[in-house]
Parts: sequence; structure tokens; C-alpha cells
Amino acid sequence: MKLTVAQYLVKKLEFIGIKNVFGLPGDYNFNILDAIVDSKNINWVNCTNELNASYAADGYARINGYGAVVTTYGVGELSAINGIAGSYAENLPVIHVAGVPVLSYINNNVVVHHNFAKADYFVFKRAFENVTVKNAYLNFENAKSEIDRVIDALVNEKMPVYLAIPIDVCNMIIDDAGFDCVHLEKSDTKNLDLALQKIISHIKKAKNPLFIADYLIKRFNLKNELNEITSYIQTSVMLMGKGSVNETSPNFIGTYAGNFSDEKLIDIIDKSDLIISAGFVYADLNTGGFSTFEQADIQINKKEVIIFGEKFENVLIQDIIKLLAEKIKEILPPLRVGEISKTVQKNEKIGKIFVDELLPEIQTIFEKNDSFIIETGLMSLSGAFLSLKENMEYQAQTLWGSIGWATPACFGAMLADRKRNTVLFTGEGAHQLTVQELANYFEYGLCPVIFLLNNGGYTVERVLSKNPDDVYNNITNWNYSKLLEAFSNGREFWYAKAQTMEELHKVLEEVKKLKGKKLCYVEIFTDKTDFTKTGSKLVLNMKNFRERLETA
Amino acid sequence: MKLTVAQYLVKKLEFIGIKNVFGLPGDYNFNILDAIVDSKNINWVNCTNELNASYAADGYARINGYGAVVTTYGVGELSAINGIAGSYAENLPVIHVAGVPVLSYINNNVVVHHNFAKADYFVFKRAFENVTVKNAYLNFENAKSEIDRVIDALVNEKMPVYLAIPIDVCNMIIDDAGFDCVHLEKSDTKNLDLALQKIISHIKKAKNPLFIADYLIKRFNLKNELNEITSYIQTSVMLMGKGSVNETSPNFIGTYAGNFSDEKLIDIIDKSDLIISAGFVYADLNTGGFSTFEQADIQINKKEVIIFGEKFENVLIQDIIKLLAEKIKEILPPLRVGEISKTVQKNEKIGKIFVDELLPEIQTIFEKNDSFIIETGLMSLSGAFLSLKENMEYQAQTLWGSIGWATPACFGAMLADRKRNTVLFTGEGAHQLTVQELANYFEYGLCPVIFLLNNGGYTVERVLSKNPDDVYNNITNWNYSKLLEAFSNGREFWYAKAQTMEELHKVLEEVKKLKGKKLCYVEIFTDKTDFTKTGSKLVLNMKNFRERLETA
Repeated sequence: MKLTVAQYLVKKLEFIGIKNVFGLPGDYNFNILDAIVDSKNINWVNCTNELNASYAADGYARINGYGAVVTTYGVGELSAINGIAGSYAENLPVIHVAGVPVLSYINNNVVVHHNFAKADYFVFKRAFENVTVKNAYLNFENAKSEIDRVIDALVNEKMPVYLAIPIDVCNMIIDDAGFDCVHLEKSDTKNLDLALQKIISHIKKAKNPLFIADYLIKRFNLKNELNEITSYIQTSVMLMGKGSVNETSPNFIGTYAGNFSDEKLIDIIDKSDLIISAGFVYADLNTGGFSTFEQADIQINKKEVIIFGEKFENVLIQDIIKLLAEKIKEILPPLRVGEISKTVQKNEKIGKIFVDELLPEIQTIFEKNDSFIIETGLMSLSGAFLSLKENMEYQAQTLWGSIGWATPACFGAMLADRKRNTVLFTGEGAHQLTVQELANYFEYGLCPVIFLLNNGGYTVERVLSKNPDDVYNNITNWNYSKLLEAFSNGREFWYAKAQTMEELHKVLEEVKKLKGKKLCYVEIFTDKTDFTKTGSKLVLNMKNFRERLETA
Repeated sequence: MKLTVAQYLVKKLEFIGIKNVFGLPGDYNFNILDAIVDSKNINWVNCTNELNASYAADGYARINGYGAVVTTYGVGELSAINGIAGSYAENLPVIHVAGVPVLSYINNNVVVHHNFAKADYFVFKRAFENVTVKNAYLNFENAKSEIDRVIDALVNEKMPVYLAIPIDVCNMIIDDAGFDCVHLEKSDTKNLDLALQKIISHIKKAKNPLFIADYLIKRFNLKNELNEITSYIQTSVMLMGKGSVNETSPNFIGTYAGNFSDEKLIDIIDKSDLIISAGFVYADLNTGGFSTFEQADIQINKKEVIIFGEKFENVLIQDIIKLLAEKIKEILPPLRVGEISKTVQKNEKIGKIFVDELLPEIQTIFEKNDSFIIETGLMSLSGAFLSLKENMEYQAQTLWGSIGWATPACFGAMLADRKRNTVLFTGEGAHQLTVQELANYFEYGLCPVIFLLNNGGYTVERVLSKNPDDVYNNITNWNYSKLLEAFSNGREFWYAKAQTMEELHKVLEEVKKLKGKKLCYVEIFTDKTDFTKTGSKLVLNMKNFRERLETA
């Protein structure tokens, strides 16, 4: 069938399962947007700015599997680059498509708006080369093959890719043959088999084997396989792996982050004679400030397996995990570790709200199939120690840690699965950066529960700076209920504030009734120098880590 | 005197005249912020997000001469890159300083937050190399010399520069000798003299010489010299040069943008036998969609002069313009062209507000020394044809054209000169992208007059797209008076709306009384498909330009 290049791209996005594309219009991307709007199965989502659009696409990809953002040339694409870099850091497949001027302008270096006084049409692609795994600048000759090439990478790497499409290339007529074809990478079968046999033999010998799941389990959609493995082997998650295992399993032994973790869990890990990690990254905030091991005994990485130092290359994580999930029942009997202390407990305090007592309260509104999205900040390390109900989603931007991500990312995540009730937890400092995306929750009739921690500034940075009273960690103080009136513009929402535990309990009772029915927005007040235990531990651990590093 | 590297940098910024530094705190830039906060003469300005901070620094640089923005590593700097690219496109000297992790992390590729799973500490510098003229990554050996080098470039090029400073390098003690030294570039004296003599001889011979000023006159602070020249030679400005000449001069003959311009002006230009341009860029929106000449007879460029095709290299615009301003009185008698039709006229219409009748009404509130800042969009081309009172500032982002720029840029511009009353004109589409910076107007007690054109979406894009009803040009509809209540949080402002010319007249009478005393916010409603004449002409001119280009 004949169609335009823009239509071919849209058909291909549709084929890999994208149903919502985020972005902003601009006079260089109209043809792409026309193709999206004309498509029956893809919805165009106008975001409020390009950074928000890229965050929304990131959030969408976390739930849907793939995300897409379309911006205009120069101004639009550069505004989105931080969001794309975040997807790159966190291994999320987001395709960024930029509409660019016609080829005759490019070839003649015509100075048009969104370019420099000395025109350079490739400067933005060069900037994006730093934050995408594949990227292409389409022309009349390469359009189809380049689209195919970058989509292959998107699928295989689960990482961001970039496409620049000149207006006139968009309109070129091509044949749609191959739109439904993605070249999947394959494991080296010999190495895959060898690695599997070695892992099995180690598991058989081990007395206390342990599986630690990290973020790539979620990215490669291996949650079912992991749950199968968890039936036979005790399993922990790293912070970035939070949400990859069914936490109601009796064999889930809690979230591991070195000395942030429950002592019983630390003890189990210390006594284990075989730790298998999957998709693990040794990064500061993923490891309780480098207070975990640096490498597991068996490391299942994205495209290799390392078994006690022996490397098996070209073994894809999805292949080895799937095989392991099949085989494990043949080598181990079903396991039932039973309840160990793995969750933070709610206690019945009254009076002032302290940050360390807050999340356990919020945990009480979690239900099966909910999503919990937590912003980078004071509370994000603590959030990973909450207990998730069956099939709950948990999302945080732990490695990239760009404050402001959560408000638009949650919007994207909610569009990816409108059936899930979603709870967003953010600090007011981070919220302010991207706050205008709230308007889109109303526009799309979404009903999240939003908890806003109002503690008078960037409290996580007060933890990290020498002087907690540094003026630069103060922010402007807003009236958030008026803000909701501004963005909702007459549509319904429920706003409440909590300054004491008694108020919080009352508010949470109401939230339980309203969750999923009405947008709930709860402003919670704590002291500006009330720090979490995890935050204080982090400072100490990083200080120690740096000393070890610099004296090594 | 001994001081830290951070203090040296701050002292140097102070020396070149920077009094406000914009940005956001992050745990990698605390030491830089401490040095700023400790400085007596530099004020730290917390912005609401990094893009806004970079826009504010751009606006500040337009009035103050130099601007500075400080962000944190990775997430912060990438969020600001579009703003810095805008300063690069529009030739504005903004220094971007990023605080980065300690050298031991860099040297060991430690994976910390705001980096990738496979650490790459130089990736962001690489991205910034595309949008800055000089950039440096400091270490213990090069810190001082690299700071000096990039500041020299900032001053000489009036273009953005980039500095990455590791935390521990910030704290290194150095000597402050040389902080007050900038190596200024100099013209080639022989070429400068030759070019000057040639220009003088051409001016002497010419019957109708004409001077056309563009944006570099403002950037190199040559407004006084230009006004001297204007006393002897009739002068026009390009769109980007708007505001560089005293428009109350009888020899100012109006803004030139090809066939957008007044017919009398087109006639004068057609009949001129010597057109001298200064700092001119042949860019689409600067030239009425390429409907002007491509090159003047004499082109005074940034670092060269071209006289009827003969090039004089290494002649700096500031040197030749200064000499010309001195010499012109010796070669020409004082001139008094007298009033020609160069301004749009207010007319006494009533009823519905039409976009082409709106700006002439707003012009009635302009007074001597005011600033007028206009956002990219439907009205920005038309704005350049308004008549400016004595010593008025006029700022627009004509070439880069990043919607959202104006709201934070105006904030920065106002901090650069708090004595000027400032009028901001923006469309609601653009305003939404960066709206949170409104909170800072209240925080700093600034009292702009803000006109918000509410016409139901991105109307400039409706002009440019095939179908004016394209859904992607719709935006969410907000309640802007509530928004002001949210951001002001109890502080005073004056809000009004105008749906008819009668209402607009009444509102403007009130605004005249309140201007500079209270923040005024006026929401003006027009039809979503009411297009300006300049917008419609642009579409036609660009179509013709492209045809000429592609058939050439």
C-alpha cells in the first residue's frame, strides 16, 4: 500500500504498540502531526511544553513498553533533550521525532527561524547523538530504511532513538511493505546454553541462593518470568528494580539498598552463598550510597552474563531470564520463606507530621493494581521500602533524578493504562518545575491522587548542603488550591491539606473513597529541616565512599 | 588576594558587570552558589526551572550587557540548553556554569545520579559545544586560565560560553590576580582605516545614503553611536534591530521588513543609492520572509566590512561604528528628514477586537524609558512596526523564536533595570510553557504590565498550517486570574479582561494609572482564526522564496 513517509512512521509506531504520542506542534512538524491525527489507533497528546512532553513519553513508555514524542526543529527538540537523556539513563525506549525544514533550505543553509545566524542544520542531531542509541536525518533516499533501522534499535535496546524529518521528506510517497517487520537481536545460542547450564549448576550447589532484580527486568517486560523464579528462590529488588516482583509473594524478602535496608534482609544477603543479579546498576542512589556489593556472584546484564568472573557474551537478558524461569522448577522445590520484616510499619502517632512517618500512612491507601509514582527528592529513597500490593506498578527516576519529572511522567503513565488507579507523591520544589502539566489531567479526565509535600523548599538539598538554611534552597510559596482552580477551569477536583497526623488520617479516609473517581490533591506540611533517615544515611555513606575511593 | 576558584569566577562576573545570576540549586553546584550568595554585589535569583533561568539570563543580558546562569550537572544543564541556544542564535553573552561531581568520580567513571548507567562525564559538555563559542571543563591545573579564556570570549564575541566546574575544583585556593583583566580583541588598524575611508568616500558621493541597523548594534552597545549617525543620515531598522535607534529622531524612517513595510519606506529604500547595513542577518522573520535585499551595498558585519563586494577582514563592528559616529559630522550636514508615515495608527473602532487593531491601542500606553517585550507568535512581526518613545527598550526573540521565552526573559530584563516600566505582550499558548516564572515577579516585587492574547490556541501556527482548525493547535483553557492568585499568594495585582474595543479602552486608561505601581495583567480575547496581515504576508512570501530557491 502506498503512503507518505510520515504515515509509514506512524504505522510503524502503531505496530510496536504506541497508542499515544506526546509533544507540541510547530510549523516544521505539521505533516507528522497530520499523520498522527489521521491515524485511527494513535492519539495525539498536546503537552504544555516540550520537557513535559518528553517526561510524559518516558512515563508512558514505563507502562506501555514504548513511548514517542514529536517536537519541532531546534527550539522544541532542545527543550525536550533532558527528558530524552533521562530515558537514556534509565533505559527506556522513547522515540524522539523532530520535524525540520525542507531539504532545499538545508542544502542551501538558508537562515530560518529556530536556527542560528550562521545556519547549521545538523547541530541538534549532534546534540542528540549524546543521548540516543541510534539517530537518523531522513532524506529522499534513506527515509524508509532509516526509519526501520532506528525502530529496530528502539525495540532491541529499549533505549531512546532520534529521527529528524524534513517537511518535504514527510510527504514523499513510499510503499508500506515492511512496516510490520522488526529485526530482533538474538542471543548467541551456544553462550546462552552454556551460561544457563552454569547458572543451574551453581543454583543446585548453593545452600542459600538469592535473586536480586533491578531495573532491566521491568524494561524488558520480564515481570512474569521473575515471579516464576521467585516461586523457587528468595528474591529481593534494588531501588530501581522496585515493582518488578510481586511483593505479596512469601519469597519476596524486601528492597535492598545496603545499610538502608532492614537488618534481617542484610543478614540474609550476608549469609547467601549465591547472589544472582539481573539488570543491576551500581549507582549511588540505587545502592544506598554504594553500601551494597559492587558485583553479584552471577550477573545477568543486558547482553552478557558474568558467572564468578567468567563472561558469556551476546547473551540477552530476556533470553536467559525466560529460560531460567522455565528450568527453575526442575531444579528447585517450591519455596515458602514466609513473612520476614520487609515493610515499613504505620504507627499510631498523633500531632505534627514527621517525614519518616508519612509514607507508611500513605501506603494504607494502596490497593491491588494501583500505580505509585514518586518524585526524586527527600522521600524517594524511603519510598522504595514501602510494601506494594499485588500487581502494583512502582515508578521513580532514581538514576537520572531530574526533579520535575514525576508530574508529567505520571500523566503519561496514566494514559498508558487508564484502568490503574494512580498515586503520585511529589515535593513542592520539584512540582513547581513542570506544574502546568496538571492542566492535562483535567483535559483527559484523569483522577490521580496527588500528594504534595510542602516543606518550604528543596529539602533534599538542605540534607546535602553544608547549611540547611541556605537561601538558595528556598522557593516561592504558592497557593496550590488556587492553582488547581486555574488549571481545572471549572472542572471537579478534591483538595485538602494536612498539618497534623490527625488531619492526615482523616484526609486519607476520604481519599480512599474518592480514589479513581475524582482528582485528589493533598498538601502535606512538614518542617523544612525534618530529614528522612535514608537521606541522612546517604550523606554519610557517600562521604565514606569518596574517602575509600580517594585513598585507594 | 587568595580565594577559591568559585570566588574567583564570581569576582570576575562582578567585574564585567553582572549583578544577578539566575539558576537552580543542585547538590553539585552548592559551592558556586555559596560564592554567589557571599558576594556583596551579586544577587542569586532562584528560578522555577532551568529553561526559565536560561531565558531570564538571556533577557537580563539584553539589558545589562552580560547574563549568567548556574545549573547543576546533567539534568539542570540540559534543561537550560534551549535557552542558551537562543542566546547563541541571537548573539547574547550568557555564561552557563554547571556544577559537576568531584574529580575522583570523574576519573573513575563512578555512576552517580544525573549520569548514565555507563558513566560519561563529558557528554553534556559535548552537547553544549554546539551552542556556545567557548567552553571548558575545569580541573586543578587549568581552572584559572580556563575561566579567563571563556570570559574573554564572552566579552569579545558577545556569545554564550560554558563552564563545567567539579565540586573540589570549586574549592581550590588560587590568587585573584588578573580577575579584572579581559583581553579585548582589536581591529586590524590598517583595514579599519581603509574601510572607514572607503565608507566616507561612498557617503560623500551618495545622493540618498541610508543606514539600516540590525541586532548587533544593540548587542555591542552601540545605540549612542547609532543615534549620532542618525543625526546625519536617514536610518531604518530591521526587525531584530528594533529599539537600537531613537525613534523620535526625525531621521528615523521606520522599521524595514521588505513588503511588510510602509510603502513610503519601501520607496525610500528603492531610491537609495547607498545602503549601509550594520549587524544584519538575512533570516526569514527578520526580512519579512526574505522580501528585502540580501546584502546591502556596504555591510558592516561583526568582524568584517564588505564594501561593494570588497572585504576588509578583522574590522570589528564596534570600532568602525564608533569611528563613523565621530567622522560623520565632518562629512555630512545635520539632516532633518521630517515626519514620514512610519508608525501604525490607532483608530477609533468599537465592538469586537481584531488583532490588527490591537497593538496600536497598546502603543498608547508607551512612555519614555519604557521597555516593551513581545513574545514570538502571531503578533511579533506586527510589534516591530509600533512607534517607540524616547529611550525605550524593545526586545523580541525573532530568529530563535522559542515560544515561552518572553515570560521569564521579561523577568530577567526587569531585574537588569528596575527603573524602567515594562510592558510584556504574549499569547496564551506561549505563556503556558513557562508560566510558573510569574511567581518570581511577585517574589521580587516587580510591576510589569502583561498583556495576554487569548485566542484559543497557537494562532500563529494556524496561520502556517494547511487547516486553521487543526486540533493540535488547540490548548487547554485556563483561568488566568486564579493563576495569578496562586502565584501571588496574597500579594497585590490588578487583573482585567477585554473582549471589546470599548473594554480595551477602559482597561488601558486604568493601566496608564497603575503602570509601574502594581502588576497589571490584561487578558484580551480575539477570534482563533483572526490572523494579522503580517502573518498572511509571511506565508505568501515564504512560498515565493521557496519556489525561487527550488527553481534556481
